[in-house]
Amino acid sequence: MYDIIKKKRDGQELSTEEIYYVVENYTKGNIPDYQMAALLMAIYFNKMNERETLDLTKAMINSGEKVDISYIDGIKVDKHSTGGVGDTITLILGPMIAATGVPFVKMSGRGLGHTGGTLDKLESIENFKVNLSREEFIRIVNQTNIVICSQTSNIAPADKKMYSLRDVTATVDNISLIASSIMSKKLAIGSDAILLDVKVGKGAFMKDLDSAVELSNEMVRIGSNYGRETVAVLTNMDEPLGNAIGNSLEVKEAIDVLKGNGPKDLYDLSIELGSILLLMAKKVKNRNEGKEVLEEVIRTNKAYEKLIQLVRYQGGNVEQIKNPDLLPKAKYIIEVKSSKEGYIKSIDAEKIGLCALKLGAGRETMDYKIDLSAGIVLNKKINDKINKDEILAYIHTNNLSKVTEVEEMIKDIIEISDIKGEDKKLIYGIVTKEGVTLY
Amino acid sequence: MYDIIKKKRDGQELSTEEIYYVVENYTKGNIPDYQMAALLMAIYFNKMNERETLDLTKAMINSGEKVDISYIDGIKVDKHSTGGVGDTITLILGPMIAATGVPFVKMSGRGLGHTGGTLDKLESIENFKVNLSREEFIRIVNQTNIVICSQTSNIAPADKKMYSLRDVTATVDNISLIASSIMSKKLAIGSDAILLDVKVGKGAFMKDLDSAVELSNEMVRIGSNYGRETVAVLTNMDEPLGNAIGNSLEVKEAIDVLKGNGPKDLYDLSIELGSILLLMAKKVKNRNEGKEVLEEVIRTNKAYEKLIQLVRYQGGNVEQIKNPDLLPKAKYIIEVKSSKEGYIKSIDAEKIGLCALKLGAGRETMDYKIDLSAGIVLNKKINDKINKDEILAYIHTNNLSKVTEVEEMIKDIIEISDIKGEDKKLIYGIVTKEGVTLY
Repeated sequence: MYDIIKKKRDGQELSTEEIYYVVENYTKGNIPDYQMAALLMAIYFNKMNERETLDLTKAMINSGEKVDISYIDGIKVDKHSTGGVGDTITLILGPMIAATGVPFVKMSGRGLGHTGGTLDKLESIENFKVNLSREEFIRIVNQTNIVICSQTSNIAPADKKMYSLRDVTATVDNISLIASSIMSKKLAIGSDAILLDVKVGKGAFMKDLDSAVELSNEMVRIGSNYGRETVAVLTNMDEPLGNAIGNSLEVKEAIDVLKGNGPKDLYDLSIELGSILLLMAKKVKNRNEGKEVLEEVIRTNKAYEKLIQLVRYQGGNVEQIKNPDLLPKAKYIIEVKSSKEGYIKSIDAEKIGLCALKLGAGRETMDYKIDLSAGIVLNKKINDKINKDEILAYIHTNNLSKVTEVEEMIKDIIEISDIKGEDKKLIYGIVTKEGVTLY
Repeated sequence: MYDIIKKKRDGQELSTEEIYYVVENYTKGNIPDYQMAALLMAIYFNKMNERETLDLTKAMINSGEKVDISYIDGIKVDKHSTGGVGDTITLILGPMIAATGVPFVKMSGRGLGHTGGTLDKLESIENFKVNLSREEFIRIVNQTNIVICSQTSNIAPADKKMYSLRDVTATVDNISLIASSIMSKKLAIGSDAILLDVKVGKGAFMKDLDSAVELSNEMVRIGSNYGRETVAVLTNMDEPLGNAIGNSLEVKEAIDVLKGNGPKDLYDLSIELGSILLLMAKKVKNRNEGKEVLEEVIRTNKAYEKLIQLVRYQGGNVEQIKNPDLLPKAKYIIEVKSSKEGYIKSIDAEKIGLCALKLGAGRETMDYKIDLSAGIVLNKKINDKINKDEILAYIHTNNLSKVTEVEEMIKDIIEISDIKGEDKKLIYGIVTKEGVTLY
């Protein structure tokens, strides 16, 4: 291990054998954390080339269990978001895709920090079961075309262990390490097509387009190299997606969208991403056809019915979907009013996410207990007109002690300008193995 | 700690408070090894500036005990070598200096790897006591002007812990970390003048003159900043110093030099370094006068008598000094003969050190038990004429199993050329706070 650290420190390429040695022995506990930390920092500085990154991904996949889903008919699609605020897309996209007849198989994670996790959101539905046995998983997906569950702890355990270490040693921000971490978990599950929603902007991990393109290229290259159709979509995460930030609040919002209501940006992005997924699944010939198919499943309520079916098959209380008022509700809803008039100039998504975290909607450490009903609902989005004393946002909380602070924070975060800004882009571009297309 | 790692990773300067925080909490065990390893690797890449290096040194000194020796009259001098092969200088220089009336106070360490340690050498003398209580230390130095003992385990414990970590995480090779590690241990002991023997060449830690000058500058700056007269001498470590490599073999060689015999390079370097120390101690007005004084204490046997006194006061068997044949002796002495004639072109000191290590003269890990009698005695040095079948070196060993291998290694290491090379320099230059003088 010493020689491997020194080699990378001195800017040399690590061999396939060396990378496998490190991942295997670190997972087994034969390599101590301090040596791994030194290697990760050396990788941070001297980077990994494409071959090394691919080897690292393979080694992490091989460190654990692979989920074979070849027994499911059709082209199975999976979707992954690099993490945003108010990002309820999976709860909308999954039922929409499945309603068209394409199997949607999603193993998801928990939220951490200012971004929410799909599993936490689903758990605001009473008795919804995120931990499925292999048998349950197979039975459900065969009967319904859709499953959204927790990934077993044995998917890429090397990544899990390495990520925990990177998190406390300031070695997260490296394209090769991020790409291999995401792709090892995706590739361990045998879906045919993988759509990566790479968030860009203030609330995202990638703050600028250049680094988002770089990460996308790396992930698409890894996926393609593994023989999986992989596409990355670069999407805007300057302001939160939709209006709701918080677990049950976002479930309610997803139901709204599936019923044909709900915020436009959330609907539009779901249709855009969905049309790409349907094209990847060869269900349609082009994206426009994909959009029509998806609009159809919304209009005919088939997507909404698919959500009900998903909840029923995974043991959840369907009444809460039919009547979202039955979802967990905060004791207090406090209006945050604007102190001036104008146009909304910006709503920093990360900062809003941190407000929701403060209210208990997220977790700062993995063992934190989330308040499923807490959160924020925006009443205005960027470029909306606002009058003095008009409502900017609603705070949903069970604890009044944090309200004054969060109210002030929200007022600070939502910037108001005298003039209306330019229309913002929802999607910046698409990255496929053929190259990068920016809009 | 996370923020401190990130700051250094991003190339920013750490504040005094941050450096103290790290050193104090790492020593106490509040900061885990993996975070320290990440920080050290970040320091390796982004370096530390002069202020940070000084703060790190101070923090490491403050992590432990300081040895006050102000009760000893006169200007107390200390000497440190960055580690060489066959480097018996302390055993010669100490008695010489003390014999002139200048107090020589040396707390020494053990050898590791291919370089030997003074304490190990002294322990080849029966009953020689390297661990002295504070009372013994004071009594001996007041009566004899000389003490060579083990540093207490509580001198710069932060450095001890950090060095162990650096050693296994490939973060040793950084000028700031090396300089602060050496200087924290030296400065914790209150000597007035510190002479640093910075070895340069194949058998040294610093392989080239540039990095040796850089390290010297850094150490001299730290020492001067602490109000201690500090001088670094850049000395040649391409071939081993003297002829003997091995513990009792080197003690015997030191006795030879103090008796006015012994290898010329060892004698010359002792006189050179000693004259600088006497100048620093204000015992003489210039180095030439210093050399005369030292030649005098050799000629009159005063330096040799001082060694006898040192051994007696530290409990050692004086008879072994008077009759070095009583020192530990290896069972077998094997001649290594030259297979061709010519002139000795090179004798890679590090490789010869590794041969001695293989014979048991050194330790690979700190808990290894050294064979005090094992080692190598060179019969030829660089530029000496050698005939075919003439003896190149002698292997001293108690274990015949390694002999064939070591014999072949020695033959490979000692390169022979048809033509005689240029005279080699014993000293490359001197670094003081006024600047660098290269010869």
